Amino acid sequence: MPNARRSERGPMMTGGTPLRSLDEEELLGHIIPAFPPSDDLVVAPGDDAAVLRTSDRTIATTDTVVLGRDWLDAWSSGADIGHKVVAQNLADVAAMGGVPTGVLVTLVADPELSLEWVIDHTRGLAEACAAAGVAVLGGDLSSAPAGVVMVSVTALGRLDGAPVLRSGARPGDVLAVKGSLGLSDAGLRLLQADAVERLPEAVQTHRRPRPPLAAGPGAAAAGATAMLDVSDGLLRDGGRIARASHVVIDLDLEALVPYVDVLADVLGAEQALDCVLAGGEEHSLLATFPPGDLPEGWRVIGRVRAPGDGEAAGILVDGRVVTHTGWDHFRTT
Amino acid sequence: MPNARRSERGPMMTGGTPLRSLDEEELLGHIIPAFPPSDDLVVAPGDDAAVLRTSDRTIATTDTVVLGRDWLDAWSSGADIGHKVVAQNLADVAAMGGVPTGVLVTLVADPELSLEWVIDHTRGLAEACAAAGVAVLGGDLSSAPAGVVMVSVTALGRLDGAPVLRSGARPGDVLAVKGSLGLSDAGLRLLQADAVERLPEAVQTHRRPRPPLAAGPGAAAAGATAMLDVSDGLLRDGGRIARASHVVIDLDLEALVPYVDVLADVLGAEQALDCVLAGGEEHSLLATFPPGDLPEGWRVIGRVRAPGDGEAAGILVDGRVVTHTGWDHFRTT
Repeated sequence: MPNARRSERGPMMTGGTPLRSLDEEELLGHIIPAFPPSDDLVVAPGDDAAVLRTSDRTIATTDTVVLGRDWLDAWSSGADIGHKVVAQNLADVAAMGGVPTGVLVTLVADPELSLEWVIDHTRGLAEACAAAGVAVLGGDLSSAPAGVVMVSVTALGRLDGAPVLRSGARPGDVLAVKGSLGLSDAGLRLLQADAVERLPEAVQTHRRPRPPLAAGPGAAAAGATAMLDVSDGLLRDGGRIARASHVVIDLDLEALVPYVDVLADVLGAEQALDCVLAGGEEHSLLATFPPGDLPEGWRVIGRVRAPGDGEAAGILVDGRVVTHTGWDHFRTT
Repeated sequence: MPNARRSERGPMMTGGTPLRSLDEEELLGHIIPAFPPSDDLVVAPGDDAAVLRTSDRTIATTDTVVLGRDWLDAWSSGADIGHKVVAQNLADVAAMGGVPTGVLVTLVADPELSLEWVIDHTRGLAEACAAAGVAVLGGDLSSAPAGVVMVSVTALGRLDGAPVLRSGARPGDVLAVKGSLGLSDAGLRLLQADAVERLPEAVQTHRRPRPPLAAGPGAAAAGATAMLDVSDGLLRDGGRIARASHVVIDLDLEALVPYVDVLADVLGAEQALDCVLAGGEEHSLLATFPPGDLPEGWRVIGRVRAPGDGEAAGILVDGRVVTHTGWDHFRTT
């Protein structure tokens, strides 16, 4: 675990060149040139504001990560955080059925933060944006009290068809997922257990989730009735679709076996199922579709039905209401 | 100074109900209903992302304020900060010649921050957005280490004509201003001197700047060749236009007398001139126009010419190069 050992010494704050030794222009000189070029930029950052080519409807969302709350220096590099904060914002755009087009990025940091961390972080941001064909529209830099590092991203996107809301699932639909389940949570557990080598793919997913962005507009075009990205776990996020749509979603435990199997050797069956049902920060897409052919790569994991008499909208696992507070503490009501 | 006295006791952190006693849903219940309705929202906040009606080009900018760095609890209420952070973002949209249409707002705060401050702050944000006809497109809430309160806003806008950049000023143009000069800085000095009653309008401008938003697209339509908002002072911001446009701007000290006169009785002539030349956070609009009729309310304060042989692009005051580091320390080179 070279990363963790390196980070235990606190490289963000103690190594290299502190930000306080640079003026803003010098710092921007390390940041701006790293960002990918974009044909969608009518006016690039540097004036009062940037100007982006848009269509008649623009998707907008924002998400912020804070050191110590959303990540630990010991477990994630600056580049990892750049990848992750972009991914989680772009996933929200894709989950509306949209194509991400631009981001704005704000860094608020302790002046003791090292320039090297910022350069590494900027590289991660730029890589994630370039991979998604997304322009960097601007940002802001600000100093913060000791120990504070915070990155806030706003993402914009293009909507070519109708937006796919959480509220459109209909009885008779199937629930399907595109992408992995439980890997990010498994990665977090391996980091906590100092055992990253047991499943590096899981740790990589935790550090740099890769939402299946193109599948969002693909699902919209294929008639998805509801969609979101799995940020708080299959049960919680599936429950959101169910409640917003006033339906019951029956998860099929059998259909989840392939996802559990990936993790069971490393974590054991119970923890593996826990990760699959309740693991967050995965940013795979979860959607409901009318029965019939699904777009490529989507796998059916449940069915949508109308609530029975007196039954609340929500999500069931093999017919049971499951309140998740960690697999060992599942409460059956 | 009832405000300052109240604030010396630290109402943000010590009065009322701390945020830590609410869950996110309860907290959002205090925030979301305050925001103004908008016809431009295709999908309101609450799903993965909001969807805004846009045209073929969208302006985007972001600006963050941090407690202790950008404001003091003793001098600005939560509502003041809401007004101010919205105003400074919308001014950037107007300064491109655009019409602000939407904002996203992120609050990152110490869990000890009082709910009452957040409610007051939200009211200020909502008032400023409603006054400008701007929709709130979403936001994020996050906790932060002790003592940290930070508000980050991203503003979007519509561009109906060509964007007005900083780089378009041409020899022969006039430099004109729309709005006040020096009031915000004067207000800050009065707060520092515990003498707010001497010019309440200045203190109000410092707390709640009111950029002349409609004048931005108006100037664009009237043929403005360069524009920005006065955020760092007339000299620094005027210098930015001059350097970006490779021109010399001759400020006319005589034309600034009316702005100085507003402040001179209270601050004395030297400090008053200092505020007018170097005072930031005013968010008035500064633009260059071809000679001829100006849109209503713009006042000519200088002229644009080509640099002489060996002369650098920049701004002059009555023919002198002025490097401002406080009026008493002006350095003539």
